[in-house]
Amino acid sequence: MNEKEIITFSAYGGCYVIRGNGAIESAKLGAVGVIIRSLGLPVDEHPHTGSMHYEDSIQKIPAAALATKDADILSNYLKTSKVRFAYEMDCKNFPDAVSYNVIAELTGSEKPNEIITFGGHLDSWDTGEGAHDDGTGVIHCLEALRILKTLNYKPKHTLRVVFFMNEENGNKGGQTYATWSKSRGDIQIAAVESDRGGFAPRGFEIDGNEKYLNLLQSFAPIFKPYDLHIFDKGYGGVDIGPLKKSFEGIPLFGFVPDSQRYFDFHHAPSDVFESVNKRELELGCAAIGSLVYLLDKNISF
Amino acid sequence: MNEKEIITFSAYGGCYVIRGNGAIESAKLGAVGVIIRSLGLPVDEHPHTGSMHYEDSIQKIPAAALATKDADILSNYLKTSKVRFAYEMDCKNFPDAVSYNVIAELTGSEKPNEIITFGGHLDSWDTGEGAHDDGTGVIHCLEALRILKTLNYKPKHTLRVVFFMNEENGNKGGQTYATWSKSRGDIQIAAVESDRGGFAPRGFEIDGNEKYLNLLQSFAPIFKPYDLHIFDKGYGGVDIGPLKKSFEGIPLFGFVPDSQRYFDFHHAPSDVFESVNKRELELGCAAIGSLVYLLDKNISF
Repeated sequence: MNEKEIITFSAYGGCYVIRGNGAIESAKLGAVGVIIRSLGLPVDEHPHTGSMHYEDSIQKIPAAALATKDADILSNYLKTSKVRFAYEMDCKNFPDAVSYNVIAELTGSEKPNEIITFGGHLDSWDTGEGAHDDGTGVIHCLEALRILKTLNYKPKHTLRVVFFMNEENGNKGGQTYATWSKSRGDIQIAAVESDRGGFAPRGFEIDGNEKYLNLLQSFAPIFKPYDLHIFDKGYGGVDIGPLKKSFEGIPLFGFVPDSQRYFDFHHAPSDVFESVNKRELELGCAAIGSLVYLLDKNISF
Repeated sequence: MNEKEIITFSAYGGCYVIRGNGAIESAKLGAVGVIIRSLGLPVDEHPHTGSMHYEDSIQKIPAAALATKDADILSNYLKTSKVRFAYEMDCKNFPDAVSYNVIAELTGSEKPNEIITFGGHLDSWDTGEGAHDDGTGVIHCLEALRILKTLNYKPKHTLRVVFFMNEENGNKGGQTYATWSKSRGDIQIAAVESDRGGFAPRGFEIDGNEKYLNLLQSFAPIFKPYDLHIFDKGYGGVDIGPLKKSFEGIPLFGFVPDSQRYFDFHHAPSDVFESVNKRELELGCAAIGSLVYLLDKNISF
């Protein structure tokens, strides 16, 4: 990953294809297996997992990721000598099984059919605990709703928290939610996602038109005393992405925490409860609760 | 500490007096000893140290700080029952001993007598290793100078790194540096301090007049792509503070990293090497190197 990218997600995006398409492209060149350096920033002993693809017409070869530290050792060996590398893997694809999104809401007092959805995803890769990806996103949204409920806030629109299933491996939770919501007659007016870790809040990005960008930027002075400063066009989130197809013009908001430490943990054995800082997590909850409140008060669809 | 303060240093400032003047004020009221809850944000098992004062005319009573977790247990006992509390301390005041500031510089090519000082402090409280307070500040400035030297940069003014001694217990390093610099005929034109931890950079504060505030704010667009966004009036630092007396009108710049985790470590056994994130530290070095470069290029005294 390119350490010079200040936003670590850009560095990840820049080499995601190595893991995602490595097996396909290597097999085309005659490889019998592919082994990559884990997509992470620190040089450490934690191998990272993540999605990768095969094509049915191309030989499906074994593919794995070494920890960055181990990959560097292997790379050094390769520079000076002939290396024989053996690996044994017992991965299997099991048939799909039924799982569920988890949904909670405060029903709108004026426009109950108009929904503001906010959520994170419930599934995670199994090398760690999925604390930052996306346990913190789930807690951000759960706590945001709890704060509003505790304050006895009566929303105009329905405020709906969704813990999405299967973000990591096909996004079926996000897709199913969008079609289910459409089919029952919901009017989705905005959606917010937290899926970038539980670090100190920096702001929000918006995937939406100028009107909603202006709305988001009108909130900037309210967030400034809390050091949130990013209110730009950008990306919403994987889980809420399918809402765009079912509800044309819906603005999607992506919560932007500080990204510097995210790839110390992402998809790795280090992504455990202890890696989450309580205060940083709480600030994220407050930021998302505030955005949802401001949207409920100010958005016109 | 008041968790609602978004800048944790404000929360610290708000209750510093409890530790600083606790022994004096308690003795006035007839106390035989004082024990406080550590000045820190998390509820944990690390007791915090820090400066405290006596007055010669007031009985000097024993004073200590419990870890926040232990203080809460004690406080609960006190609510429900009569508590007998005993403590044994073997603290001593030793006579002053000679120690030194450590200084390195790139001599200015055009105006060698005009100095831009930047530094952190070398001493620390001995409960931990002083990694964030102020090992990272020292490394920020050392590395900033190394970067400029490696780039073969020829500064107009003399760029001088100072590792100050005795910040924690009297600021004699900072005071001595200011008078020494004045006495040898230096013209100090700006000073920068890093003493707020090794976390992700958010910007710089300035203690100086409008002209220098405007100069600092003219740098904001250059720093924006790296997510630095704080360029406001504020505080420089303890070590560079005495320069104001010796060099009237000198602008002082304080490096502002994210403060959310600082009081997890400050003056506590947890302030160790492992608590510093390499990438966050490197970003701080780059920020300070960039500010020093921009000052050298643009400042007029």
